[in-house]
Amino acid sequence: MNDMTAQNLRSAYGGESQAHMRYKAWGEVALKDGFPTVATLFRAISYAEEIHAKGHFRLLKNVKGDFLVASGAGFGIGTTSENLQGAANGELFEVDQMYPAYIAVAEAQGEKAAVVLMKNIIEAEKTHADLYLRAKEYTDAGKDADFTNIHVCEICGYAAEGEMVDNCPICGVTKDKFTVFE
Amino acid sequence: MNDMTAQNLRSAYGGESQAHMRYKAWGEVALKDGFPTVATLFRAISYAEEIHAKGHFRLLKNVKGDFLVASGAGFGIGTTSENLQGAANGELFEVDQMYPAYIAVAEAQGEKAAVVLMKNIIEAEKTHADLYLRAKEYTDAGKDADFTNIHVCEICGYAAEGEMVDNCPICGVTKDKFTVFE
Ligand SMILES: [Fe+2]
Ligand SMILES: [Fe+2]
Ligand SMILES: [Fe+2]
Ligand SMILES: [Fe+2]
Ligand SMILES: [Fe+2]
Ligand SMILES: [Fe+2]
Repeated sequence: MNDMTAQNLRSAYGGESQAHMRYKAWGEVALKDGFPTVATLFRAISYAEEIHAKGHFRLLKNVKGDFLVASGAGFGIGTTSENLQGAANGELFEVDQMYPAYIAVAEAQGEKAAVVLMKNIIEAEKTHADLYLRAKEYTDAGKDADFTNIHVCEICGYAAEGEMVDNCPICGVTKDKFTVFE
Repeated sequence: MNDMTAQNLRSAYGGESQAHMRYKAWGEVALKDGFPTVATLFRAISYAEEIHAKGHFRLLKNVKGDFLVASGAGFGIGTTSENLQGAANGELFEVDQMYPAYIAVAEAQGEKAAVVLMKNIIEAEKTHADLYLRAKEYTDAGKDADFTNIHVCEICGYAAEGEMVDNCPICGVTKDKFTVFE
């Protein structure tokens, strides 16, 4: 694999791993603050970031060794509304800036598997941002999110609530590959 | 909090988050390679790294915002023996180099809570390195690890196998705070 694509995938792996952990922590805050459904949403999307992180890790399977990894990550514990806004901002940074830049490099280097992986991830991150911003409308009004059946595609990290579609709109797998969070 | 201590805690958070994820991935490899007990060990210590990551995240709760985080992390998927050696090397780097350096800075800056947290983490990482190296002796001989009752202290990340001691030898909590992995 070309060095710059490998470096970008390591950076993305670091970012996804830290998002996975941050959402776990913010989910615990949401539970303590009396928003159990928002807590479930954080847990579900934390799982989606695990899928993304593992996707990068597996693509890098032959680039072995110890590296210094530079990744963007959000910090701080605020109110659940603030945490939801921070989460959405992180997702939108990945959608608008980070992954498009990494995809441009991977395309220039002919790294097709990396391009395909990251294009799917962008679509998944859009579903995350949307859910976080919708949840924030509820917590801004002092209420828990009125979401049911929060589910995540275990192949690509697509996240949704309510009734399941038959096939993942991003990667196409059948809905038996969705994990439901309660 | 002083900037350099905050930066080191962010770096440690990034490293712990990536170790958490790497051990999950290597655990899946161990399961596929026919070493279910080693897989359980990776899952258990992955959980311990989650405890460490959350400790840093909580200590940084008032240092809010988005940051570029530089962390050391291991990559690559090898045989389970190779992955266990890589895991032990990462633990020993934290024990011998990373945390002592961060503790020296925190002590110089009078950041007592950071010093206490990181001193406990070093002791936990030693238990991780020891378990990984003991497990590697088994996989080097083509066998699964002969470990029973793998458990982790949910307060400090201490990990052990076999009979439980009554109190965590690192943080002192009673053994009802240990999580057992099977
Ligand atoms: Fe992601
Ligand atoms: Fe996301
Ligand atoms: Fe999918
Ligand atoms: Fe750790
Ligand atoms: Fe460790
Ligand atoms: Fe402990």
